[in-house]
Amino acid sequence: VRIGIIGGTGGIGEGMALRMAPFHTVVIGSRETEKAQVCCKECEEILMQRGLSCSVIGKTNQETVDFAELVILAIPFKFLVSTLQELKGLEGKIVVSPVNPIEKTGTFFSYVPPPEGSAGLLAKKLLPADARLCVAFNNVAANRWRDLDDPLEYSVAVCGDDEAAKETVRQLIASVPHLKPLDAGPLAVAPLVESLTPLLLNIGRFSRMKDVGVRYL
Amino acid sequence: VRIGIIGGTGGIGEGMALRMAPFHTVVIGSRETEKAQVCCKECEEILMQRGLSCSVIGKTNQETVDFAELVILAIPFKFLVSTLQELKGLEGKIVVSPVNPIEKTGTFFSYVPPPEGSAGLLAKKLLPADARLCVAFNNVAANRWRDLDDPLEYSVAVCGDDEAAKETVRQLIASVPHLKPLDAGPLAVAPLVESLTPLLLNIGRFSRMKDVGVRYL
Repeated sequence: VRIGIIGGTGGIGEGMALRMAPFHTVVIGSRETEKAQVCCKECEEILMQRGLSCSVIGKTNQETVDFAELVILAIPFKFLVSTLQELKGLEGKIVVSPVNPIEKTGTFFSYVPPPEGSAGLLAKKLLPADARLCVAFNNVAANRWRDLDDPLEYSVAVCGDDEAAKETVRQLIASVPHLKPLDAGPLAVAPLVESLTPLLLNIGRFSRMKDVGVRYL
Repeated sequence: VRIGIIGGTGGIGEGMALRMAPFHTVVIGSRETEKAQVCCKECEEILMQRGLSCSVIGKTNQETVDFAELVILAIPFKFLVSTLQELKGLEGKIVVSPVNPIEKTGTFFSYVPPPEGSAGLLAKKLLPADARLCVAFNNVAANRWRDLDDPLEYSVAVCGDDEAAKETVRQLIASVPHLKPLDAGPLAVAPLVESLTPLLLNIGRFSRMKDVGVRYL
């Protein structure tokens, strides 16, 4: 599948591109084409140094949607509404939300979902009715994606209501070496997937660990 | 420390007793002394078959509180209020809540916390002001505790506001072979610790895994 990463010039978007580009055609989207193209060049250089050939193309966010069959919303929660209101043509496409509504209150991180109950359910409301939404990749830290020396031996929980879309997302996850996809159920469980991220951030902070990830066993 | 397990005849309570009794003095509490004593005998036999000597004593829940320095509330969420209203003498003691407010709605499990925000915060409200509450052990399945062939290679997130109590609980966790304690922050993060449990149940259900546990890395 052709992968499009909206907000692909951010840390997590670039990290995902690095991990997926050796195996898939990846388009990195940004508000500005030039920024996306600089990011692509960086990705290609990093991968070439490791002897990995790849295909990464830089485009605007809208061109990224137009090109891709599977669109990853690698954007902060605060940009979710405006981004989905701007983008056209998501009808029938697989859309993946790794978005986590998190706030830092005092010394710790909290899960602060919108009234819809989760970022996933908010995205559902804003997307075309036939967009095939999955929530996934919420719990893998940006730095881990980017650090190609990290074996990335994590589990990735996926939830959603479209079984075929979920299977495609699971295959995408399984195509990244060591990442293990797991089905967590319908889209209604998105709050549970998203709220694991502030727990990981808190464990990192209070147990002095960096970029904590998770494995289910 | 002297460990008291309230509701110790339930699956998770008995499992905890089995894992802790080789290293600590453990009292199993129940509404009826006889039930607790039958459970203790079972524990001792299981451990003796493995060549492990142990000390497990069966008492009522109230006697268990009176005896123990650290009290584990191994009870279902629905009994949390009535149990804490009945028990006396928890002043100054370390109290550990592994309680998860979970409901099954249709095919999946949801986190359904009380108005206080979490079982931990509800317990805080009901306990004496100087009880030293920690939330821990929420995410290890009862069957895993009980199956002594399971290496129990899991992480256990601990949260609470009393640093010394939290350290004692971490030491208790670390005394069980392979279990790894991690500090997740203040008691305010209890919703994040508790809501991981329905996620694990959903992953178990939808990914066909049994008694899913978690490791942070």
